Amino acid sequence: MLNENFVIPRSVIWKEDYVSLLNQQKIPQVTEYLELRNIEDVWEAIQSLKVRGAPAIGITAAYGLALAALQDQSKSLQEFHQNLQKSHDYLASSRPTAVNLFWALDRLMKSVSNAQTIDEAKSTILKEAILIEKEDEQVCQLIGEHALSLFKDGDRIMTICNAGSIATAKYGTALAPFYLAKEKNINLSVYACETRPVLQGARLTTWELMQAGVDVTLITDNMAAHTIKSKDITAIIVGADRIAANGDTANKIGTFNLALLAKSFNIPFYVAAPLSTFDPSITDGDQIPIEERNPEEVTQINGIQVAPKDVKVFNPAFDVTPNELIAGIITEKGMITGEYKEEIKKLFSN
Amino acid sequence: MLNENFVIPRSVIWKEDYVSLLNQQKIPQVTEYLELRNIEDVWEAIQSLKVRGAPAIGITAAYGLALAALQDQSKSLQEFHQNLQKSHDYLASSRPTAVNLFWALDRLMKSVSNAQTIDEAKSTILKEAILIEKEDEQVCQLIGEHALSLFKDGDRIMTICNAGSIATAKYGTALAPFYLAKEKNINLSVYACETRPVLQGARLTTWELMQAGVDVTLITDNMAAHTIKSKDITAIIVGADRIAANGDTANKIGTFNLALLAKSFNIPFYVAAPLSTFDPSITDGDQIPIEERNPEEVTQINGIQVAPKDVKVFNPAFDVTPNELIAGIITEKGMITGEYKEEIKKLFSN
Repeated sequence: MLNENFVIPRSVIWKEDYVSLLNQQKIPQVTEYLELRNIEDVWEAIQSLKVRGAPAIGITAAYGLALAALQDQSKSLQEFHQNLQKSHDYLASSRPTAVNLFWALDRLMKSVSNAQTIDEAKSTILKEAILIEKEDEQVCQLIGEHALSLFKDGDRIMTICNAGSIATAKYGTALAPFYLAKEKNINLSVYACETRPVLQGARLTTWELMQAGVDVTLITDNMAAHTIKSKDITAIIVGADRIAANGDTANKIGTFNLALLAKSFNIPFYVAAPLSTFDPSITDGDQIPIEERNPEEVTQINGIQVAPKDVKVFNPAFDVTPNELIAGIITEKGMITGEYKEEIKKLFSN
Repeated sequence: MLNENFVIPRSVIWKEDYVSLLNQQKIPQVTEYLELRNIEDVWEAIQSLKVRGAPAIGITAAYGLALAALQDQSKSLQEFHQNLQKSHDYLASSRPTAVNLFWALDRLMKSVSNAQTIDEAKSTILKEAILIEKEDEQVCQLIGEHALSLFKDGDRIMTICNAGSIATAKYGTALAPFYLAKEKNINLSVYACETRPVLQGARLTTWELMQAGVDVTLITDNMAAHTIKSKDITAIIVGADRIAANGDTANKIGTFNLALLAKSFNIPFYVAAPLSTFDPSITDGDQIPIEERNPEEVTQINGIQVAPKDVKVFNPAFDVTPNELIAGIITEKGMITGEYKEEIKKLFSN
C-alpha cells in the first residue's frame, strides 16, 4: 500500500486568484509562502530569486502570465492580445538568462493565438499554464520511477546541489526517487553535500527531504571521499544543467569531483534530467561555456568576510562531467547508458 | 641572489620580557599581535585557540614556561623547582589534547633538572625554549628545500588546510616550498582549498601566502577537480596530523578527496611532515581514530544558521589517505617513497 502520510514540498501552487510561491531565499530559517496577486508581484519574485530551478521559474512565469490575462479588462480581442504581449515582454525581462522562462511564456502565447473570444483566450491560457505544471510533474515522476528501479531498500546515496521538488513542479529530478521510495515504504538514506559556495545542499536539499521525512545527512563537500568509504555509499545521483550530444554533463560545481570519486570507489554515478536539459547542438562538454561568478560568493558568507578582501578567487559556477564517468542518464523515457551519442540520437528521433 | 624583500609571517616571537603572539582567530580581518606578559596570558591564548598548529602551540607553551621561570622570585632552588612544576602543570591544562604542548613543556623541565643555581636554571630554560623554536624552524626549512626540489618554475600546486608558517616556528611544512621558492625567485602558483567546515585555507593559508607575496588563488573544496583540469595543476601538497607505520596519513578532512583526484589526473600527491608526526606504534590508517566534531561547525558559519537546525550532520575532522595514493612523504631527512613500511623503519633506525 502506498504511504501517503507525508508531504512533498512544492514551490509554486495555483490558487485561482493568486499564485502561492515558496520563498526559497528564506529556507531553511523560515518557511514562507508568498501570495503573488498580480504580474508585478510575480516579476519581483522571479527577479529577486525567490524562486529558483529552471522548471519552477517557467511554471511561475506561466502562472504570472495567466494571472495577468485573467485580470485583463480589455473590451476587444485585439486589445487583449496587445496587453498580453506587453505582459509577456514584462515577465521575460525578470530574468533574461532563464531559458525555461521564455519557453513557458512563448508556449502560452502560442496557445491563445487562435482564440475566438477573450473568454476563450483566458480559459485557454490558464489551461496551458496548468498543463505546463502537470507535464513537469509527470516528467519528474517518471524520472523518479526509473531512478528508483536502480536502488534497493537500505541503499545510501549521495547527491549535490538541489535537483529537488522545489526546483520543479513536484518530485524534482535527482531527488525524485527518494520521494517515490518514501511512497513505497522503501528506505533510502541520502547524504547531501552542502554545495559551496551558495550552499544549496545545506539550505534546500536537507530542508525539503526533511519536510517529507526522508532520511538525510548533511556533509561538507570535502567530506565526500571519507563519507563514501566510511558510510559505504552505494551510488551518487545528481541533476544537470545542460547535457551535450555525447552525454557530457554540465552541472553545479563539485559534480565532476563526485563523478571521479564514484569511479575511484567503483560505485555508479547517475545523472537525472528531463529531455529538455539536452542540447544536441553542442557536440561535447568542451563547448559548454563555464560561467565564472562573483568572488564575493566565495570570500563572504552571509555578508561576513571569511577570506582576505583582496584575495584572488577562482569561482566557476559549473563543471563538466565527461560521459565516460556516467553510469547512466535517467530521463522521463528511461535510462540511457553506454554509447551516449547513439543513445541520445535515438532519444530524440523516437 | 636570494630575494629577501618579503616577509614570512610568524605566529610566536620571543621579545625578552614578553611573548608576541599572532592572534590567529582574528585573521584575515585583523592582523593583531598580542603581548603575553605572564603565564596567565599564555594560558589564555592557548586555551582560547588564539594559537593553532602543533609546533606553534608547543613553542608558545615553552616561552610561557620560560617567562614564568624568568619572573620567578624564589629564594631557593628547591622553591624555584616547585614553582616551575606548578607553572608546568598549569600550562599543561590549557589544551589537554595537544601532544606537542606536553612534549615541549617536559623537554624544558628535563633541561633544568640538573641546574646548580636559580640563575643557571633560568638561563637554561630560556635557551631550551629558543632551541625548540630554532629546531622547528630548521626542520621546516629542510622540508621546504626537499619539497622545492620536486617543483619547477611556473608550477601550479594545490593545497588544503593550513600547514603553514603560522602553524610552526617559520616556513610551515606543506607551505615551506613556496617561501623558499620566493627566496630563490622561482615562481610557483598556489591554489588553496578553503577547507570547510573551519575554513583554515580561506582564512589562514591565503592570508599568510599573500603577506609574503606568494601567488595564491582561493577555491571552494568542491572546485578541486575542475581547477586541476582547467588550470593544469601540476602537483598537490598537504601537511599531516599523524602518519602510521605504513605511511597511511591522517590529515584535515578533504585530504583523501584530493589524493584520489591526484590519482585520477595522474599528478603527484605529496605529504610534507616532520618526523615528529610519525606514530610507528600505529600499524596502519584503520587504527587511527577519526574525531567527529560538533554539528554546528557545519550548520552554522560565523554564528549564522545555514542549514536546518535539527538536520543530521556527519562531521569528521580528519580523513585517512592510504599510502598507495601518496607519491612521497617529505620529511626533514628527505623524501621517502615506494615501500613506506620499510622506508619509515629506516627513517627511525638511522
